[in-house]
Amino acid sequence: MNKKELIDQIRIKKSFLCIGLDTDISKIPKFLLEFEDPVFEFNKRIIDSTKDLCVAYKPNIAFYEAMGAKGWESLKKTVDYIPKDIFTIADAKRGDIGNTSKKYAQTFFSTYNFDSITVAPYMGIDSLMPFLNFKNKWTIVLGLTSNEGSNSFQNLALKNGKKLYQEVIKVSSEWGNSENMMYVVGATKANDLKQIRKTLPKHFFLIPGIGAQGGDLKEVITNGINQDIGLLINSSRGIIYAGDQENFDLKSREEALKIQQEMSKYL
Amino acid sequence: MNKKELIDQIRIKKSFLCIGLDTDISKIPKFLLEFEDPVFEFNKRIIDSTKDLCVAYKPNIAFYEAMGAKGWESLKKTVDYIPKDIFTIADAKRGDIGNTSKKYAQTFFSTYNFDSITVAPYMGIDSLMPFLNFKNKWTIVLGLTSNEGSNSFQNLALKNGKKLYQEVIKVSSEWGNSENMMYVVGATKANDLKQIRKTLPKHFFLIPGIGAQGGDLKEVITNGINQDIGLLINSSRGIIYAGDQENFDLKSREEALKIQQEMSKYL
Repeated sequence: MNKKELIDQIRIKKSFLCIGLDTDISKIPKFLLEFEDPVFEFNKRIIDSTKDLCVAYKPNIAFYEAMGAKGWESLKKTVDYIPKDIFTIADAKRGDIGNTSKKYAQTFFSTYNFDSITVAPYMGIDSLMPFLNFKNKWTIVLGLTSNEGSNSFQNLALKNGKKLYQEVIKVSSEWGNSENMMYVVGATKANDLKQIRKTLPKHFFLIPGIGAQGGDLKEVITNGINQDIGLLINSSRGIIYAGDQENFDLKSREEALKIQQEMSKYL
Repeated sequence: MNKKELIDQIRIKKSFLCIGLDTDISKIPKFLLEFEDPVFEFNKRIIDSTKDLCVAYKPNIAFYEAMGAKGWESLKKTVDYIPKDIFTIADAKRGDIGNTSKKYAQTFFSTYNFDSITVAPYMGIDSLMPFLNFKNKWTIVLGLTSNEGSNSFQNLALKNGKKLYQEVIKVSSEWGNSENMMYVVGATKANDLKQIRKTLPKHFFLIPGIGAQGGDLKEVITNGINQDIGLLINSSRGIIYAGDQENFDLKSREEALKIQQEMSKYL
C-alpha cells in the first residue's frame, strides 16, 4: 500500500486507528480453546468486528513466535485474512548486518506479505537498507519509544546538543523518504512528539502507548497531526481484551468505536 | 550452561570457537535438497563434523524465519541435535517493551531451550530485564557491532565524553553480571575491543566478524583475552560454506580445525 492509498483509507474511514494483535493464548476467551487454531480464530473475530473502524492491524510477532511453528502458521493465516485495503504492520523490531537484515526483509515482506515492519536502528545504515530497498513496502524505525526504558539511552545528550533519538530520527530519515519510512513515537511523550513533527513534517508516525500504557489520545493528535493526518495510533490490549466472554468481539468493537469517533473529529 | 561449565569446555577442547549456523537453503550443496529437511540435514552434518572443535553454535534466526513455519521446525531440530555440553546462541537481536520481551525470552529460552540470545539495547532497561530474569540463561547485548553501519550511531560522541556504545555497555552491565550477560563486540574493531576489555574485565564477549567480514583472529585474541579466555569467536560463512560437494562437512571441519589450532596456543 502506498502513501496516497493509506491517506485515502484514513479519509474514507475517518479513522487512523491501528489495532495491535498481541494475541496471547493465555488471555483469549476460554471457549476459543476448542477451535483447531484458537489464536487465528480470535484474530479472525477481532478483524471481522473492527475492520470498518481501523486502517491498520499490527500483529506483535513475539506472541506468535513464542508458540513455535504453530504460531507462525496462525500469523500467516491472520495476515492473509486481513482485507487488502487495510495496512499491515509486522511489529518485529528486527535489525542486523546487511546480509541478515535482507533475510528478515524477505521474511516479512515476501513470505508473510506485510506492508511494513518495525526495525531497531542501533546497528545503523546497512541494517536498515535491505528493508528500504523493497519496493512498495514500508520501514518503521524505532524513534522514541513509549516504555520507561526509553530513558536508558534514547534521551542521552550528545556532544552536538541533540538527544540520541533526535539524531537517530534525523540521520536515518535521509536513508529513505516519507513514502517508504515511518517512525515509532511513543504516545507517552506528547511534548517530544511536537518537536519530532517539526523535524519530520511529512512522515507518518506509528504511535503506541494509548490505553494500557497511559498515553492521552487528544494530546497525541494535537501534537502529532499534519495535513495528511500523518498518524497511525495503535491500541492493543485496550481493544482486543475488552471482553472475555463469547461476545468479546462486540466489546472490542465498542472500544475501537470510541477511539474512531474521537478521531473522526479531525477528519 | 553456567560460566564455570563454559570455561571448563573451553579448557577441555582448547577452543573458544563458535560456529554460526547461518544456513541458507540457496547456498547449501545441491544434493541435500533431496532430503525431507535439507536445512536440518546440512546443520546435522556440520555439527557432526565440528562438534569436537567448537564450544558454541549460533543459529542466525533470520535464515530460519525466512522459510516460514518449516524453518522454525528445522531450527528446533537443530537445537535439539546440538550436544548438551555445547553452548547455544539464538542470534535473534530481539528487544521490545517489557511485556513483549517476556514473550521473546519465552520463545528462545523455553520453547527452543537456547542457552542464550542476542538482544538490541536501544529500548533500554525494561527491554532487557525479561531476558535477564531467566535463571541459568544468558543475555548477549549488542555492544559494538562488526558492520559498517555501526558508525551511524554506536560511535556518536556523548556530552559526557563517552561514545554511545561505551555508555550502552557501562550502563547495561549494571543490570546483570558476568554470569548472565555477554556483549557482542565486532572483530573488525580490535582497538576498541581493548578498551571494552578494560571496562568489563570479567565478561565474555561474543566476537563476530572473523573471516568473511575481515577481522584478524590473532589481533582479536590479543586484545580481548582475559584469565578465563572470556571470548567466543564466531565464524559462520567461512566454515559452513567451505565446500559445496558431498564432502562439504570435511571442508568445514578443515576450516574449523585451522581456527581451533590457532586458539589452542592460548590454552
